[in-house]
Amino acid sequence: MSKTSKPSSSPIPDIFPLEERQAVYRAIYARRDERHFRGDPIPDQVLARIIKAAHQGPSVGFMQPWDFMLIRSLEVRNQVKELFERERQAAACYYDEPRRSHYLSLKLEGILESPINLCITCDPTRAEEVLGRNSIRETDVYSTCCAVQNLWLAARSEGIGVGWISVFKLPQLRKILGIPPHVIPVAYLCLGYPVEFQSQPLLQTEGWRDRLPLSDLLHYDDWEGVATPPEWSEFQRALEEN
Amino acid sequence: MSKTSKPSSSPIPDIFPLEERQAVYRAIYARRDERHFRGDPIPDQVLARIIKAAHQGPSVGFMQPWDFMLIRSLEVRNQVKELFERERQAAACYYDEPRRSHYLSLKLEGILESPINLCITCDPTRAEEVLGRNSIRETDVYSTCCAVQNLWLAARSEGIGVGWISVFKLPQLRKILGIPPHVIPVAYLCLGYPVEFQSQPLLQTEGWRDRLPLSDLLHYDDWEGVATPPEWSEFQRALEEN
Repeated sequence: MSKTSKPSSSPIPDIFPLEERQAVYRAIYARRDERHFRGDPIPDQVLARIIKAAHQGPSVGFMQPWDFMLIRSLEVRNQVKELFERERQAAACYYDEPRRSHYLSLKLEGILESPINLCITCDPTRAEEVLGRNSIRETDVYSTCCAVQNLWLAARSEGIGVGWISVFKLPQLRKILGIPPHVIPVAYLCLGYPVEFQSQPLLQTEGWRDRLPLSDLLHYDDWEGVATPPEWSEFQRALEEN
Repeated sequence: MSKTSKPSSSPIPDIFPLEERQAVYRAIYARRDERHFRGDPIPDQVLARIIKAAHQGPSVGFMQPWDFMLIRSLEVRNQVKELFERERQAAACYYDEPRRSHYLSLKLEGILESPINLCITCDPTRAEEVLGRNSIRETDVYSTCCAVQNLWLAARSEGIGVGWISVFKLPQLRKILGIPPHVIPVAYLCLGYPVEFQSQPLLQTEGWRDRLPLSDLLHYDDWEGVATPPEWSEFQRALEEN
């Protein structure tokens, strides 16, 4: 309880019914980064719904700094794929064996197999004076990422997989897509119905990296506070439960 | 349809039932940036659920670069509030009247009224070699923002409001919270049951800024492509529908 407010005896305004809450958590837990797509096209109505969901994202000062580039052209996608391929080889140089071979064996994209690619960008010049962006300029990009996650979760509920590719050099990607130099291509996404939704992230299945224990990532009131204040013990017990 | 895959006649693997899809969209559309909180505490079980939802966020190379700082201490929050207040006054200097008075009249935070504050950070050194982060280093922060949005939507379904404050200088915020210099405080959030969930963003209600027409933010195959390719006409009609 805080200093200035008191608990109210009136009912909490708007908690979703249990089934609806579970649906939201289901989307969150079942979302995956997809790389294996079926060829089925995405119906226009479904595509429209998930893009509208992205546009409902939060944005600093209601800036809405995003743009959506929908890419079906195979000519464009072939160029993007080539760009990715070159960058993937370059990135492999930074690994020693056996990690390098493992890296090169992983399928990291579905640029051509997916029926559509989507580039979500951020335009830092979208609005002249943006409330709340005076101190932390990067909040425009933060907003754009939240919009991406909206789309990702909406897509999951529609049975559509999303694969985010970040193995690109941005200047070259801008050139292929015709994006102006001041606009940031934040997310290059492949969208389509996946072959299947895996139960855990590919890199976990592949033994590349484990999920971190959440308790290692928590801090209470102070970053370095090692001992947990006693008032948090019930919260910590709740974390252990499913 | 793409070059390398064919539509399959087998059923799509995992589309949510209609009611569940609607619940996901409801969370996305009904989510707000909250500044008016009731004093009711958040049950530990609920808090644990929404933080676990954040930890399910996507991350580049499964890096999971986030940490969660839970802040109940009023002493700490008073310092954060003071930092905000100073920055709010500074930001006001950049507006001319009547915009300045309007800015100063807006309630932008609920640092003390909300029962809990949460700072979600990004540690760029979390992992030595991060798959997919060789070309675009900022993907660690992008991942953290996606985790924030997971939490925001889960919270909404639980009836909990989230207010994101970005009116801070980061070095001072780090100092108050004891955050190491290399760790980025991405989101400082106020969490609590709101007085009510508004039907539209505050800045829209206040006439500060309008929602942009989505059709202005779409591009097809090329950024500058003015004419819309005919194959997109049905998609565009779908966008107009509710």
